[in-house]
Amino acid sequence: MCELLGMSANVPTDIRFSFAGFSRRGGETGPHRDGWGMAFYEGKGCRSFHDPQPSARSDIARLLREYPIKSRIVIAHVRRANRGRVALENTHPFSRELWGRSWTFAHNGQLKGIKRWPLNYFQPIGTTDSEHAFCWILDQLRTRWRTLPTPRHLDFFLRELCSRLNELGVFNMLLSDSRTLYCHCSKRLCYLTRCAPFGAATLIDEDWRVDFAQETLPTDVVTVVATRPLTRDEVWTEVQPGSFLVLREGKVQNPSTDGLPSIDVPIAEAAPNVP
Amino acid sequence: MCELLGMSANVPTDIRFSFAGFSRRGGETGPHRDGWGMAFYEGKGCRSFHDPQPSARSDIARLLREYPIKSRIVIAHVRRANRGRVALENTHPFSRELWGRSWTFAHNGQLKGIKRWPLNYFQPIGTTDSEHAFCWILDQLRTRWRTLPTPRHLDFFLRELCSRLNELGVFNMLLSDSRTLYCHCSKRLCYLTRCAPFGAATLIDEDWRVDFAQETLPTDVVTVVATRPLTRDEVWTEVQPGSFLVLREGKVQNPSTDGLPSIDVPIAEAAPNVP
Repeated sequence: MCELLGMSANVPTDIRFSFAGFSRRGGETGPHRDGWGMAFYEGKGCRSFHDPQPSARSDIARLLREYPIKSRIVIAHVRRANRGRVALENTHPFSRELWGRSWTFAHNGQLKGIKRWPLNYFQPIGTTDSEHAFCWILDQLRTRWRTLPTPRHLDFFLRELCSRLNELGVFNMLLSDSRTLYCHCSKRLCYLTRCAPFGAATLIDEDWRVDFAQETLPTDVVTVVATRPLTRDEVWTEVQPGSFLVLREGKVQNPSTDGLPSIDVPIAEAAPNVP
Repeated sequence: MCELLGMSANVPTDIRFSFAGFSRRGGETGPHRDGWGMAFYEGKGCRSFHDPQPSARSDIARLLREYPIKSRIVIAHVRRANRGRVALENTHPFSRELWGRSWTFAHNGQLKGIKRWPLNYFQPIGTTDSEHAFCWILDQLRTRWRTLPTPRHLDFFLRELCSRLNELGVFNMLLSDSRTLYCHCSKRLCYLTRCAPFGAATLIDEDWRVDFAQETLPTDVVTVVATRPLTRDEVWTEVQPGSFLVLREGKVQNPSTDGLPSIDVPIAEAAPNVP
């Protein structure tokens, strides 16, 4: 399988501490040696780094452990290939543009039969289940709305789409449109929110301790999401299987869906691949 | 303005020598200090590096001057902003997926009125003329063909699209779909092809000399395209203004267009923005 790391923050935040531990799971403290990638949002812009090398030994990962890129949303992935060979085009996170926004997606799990779900606007470049699922999500969004909908409608519809995908197998995923970090937990995902009063934390995978009180302002709020806890002395919350999380400005949202029309998600398998 | 660097090769080739000279033009030997970016194709996969910092002083550029990524197609750009503020989302090269391929684009010049040309399938994320032009090209392709056409048809249609764009101002550009490197010269672009018997070359912007005979096989063919020559002791060919080059496998192609139906390029300004 693979592991996921995500971050949502209300101010541009340095992810190096979390990434230092996480990246060792790519071939040292974990078996996920079939490539890795990380996307950093800076406003509407997004830059991604990808490497089919194991993150624990990658020169690019070493640079990112040392080089402070400050970002409000980050999505990272270390891969253990199951479907799709080890190759750059199969390395998460995947990216596409929709409605003039940069969308990024990383997935852990397998989705049986997903490749039979038809696509219209977006096509996979590589051969993974995951990229097909990402293209299907964006296809459904683009089919429904020609321009960006309200966050409330988008949150609601994405939750529905994730539930559909979850029926195919295991769908732990992180997704962002540069404004919101969406997370779906199929089997295993946890998170923690750091805010004032800040304490200290020690990585599990590496001998590194940080006192966040020294590094932050009292108004900073940061949520870190990961497949498994990254620190040994903080309380991580396990996300319930089948849950969908919406994170904005560092906080887990509980968007009310009252009053929203029930959305009839088209059943992709039944839909013809319209020309 | 900006400067462009491109490479097409018949085997995965290390671009560090050319990039070492080119990247110094981003703030040291040249004034293009408003960000830089570089895309490397590896098969169907493509990875890009972007930095709004000047390339001459960027930590990421330093890594790429030292780290050998072997690629058959490379597109790089150093930016001197004219339209669009200095920001990650305005940093070339831009990327999109079309027909399951990764497309990459970098541009030098200005295109008056381009932002009034309607778009349907692709939207800019940033605010540059260049990204709008890129989206327009892809929109025209996607409107014409739902799946990848033959190289001959694609070459021909892209040449027509570039001519149209060139009417708006200055359109020096590099574009790739992972198979071909397309170049349009509006004012200034030059190239050289290195093949056996290989000689030596010395950079203009940095004190570095390479003997390619030591680094290559006799069957290797590499063409480097740049706004200005990068070496002092090789013969660079100036591309004629208004010309369109097609490079595959390291070689400049002269595709025959005999027998191809004349393509009526839709006039974007007149076309309604169909929902």
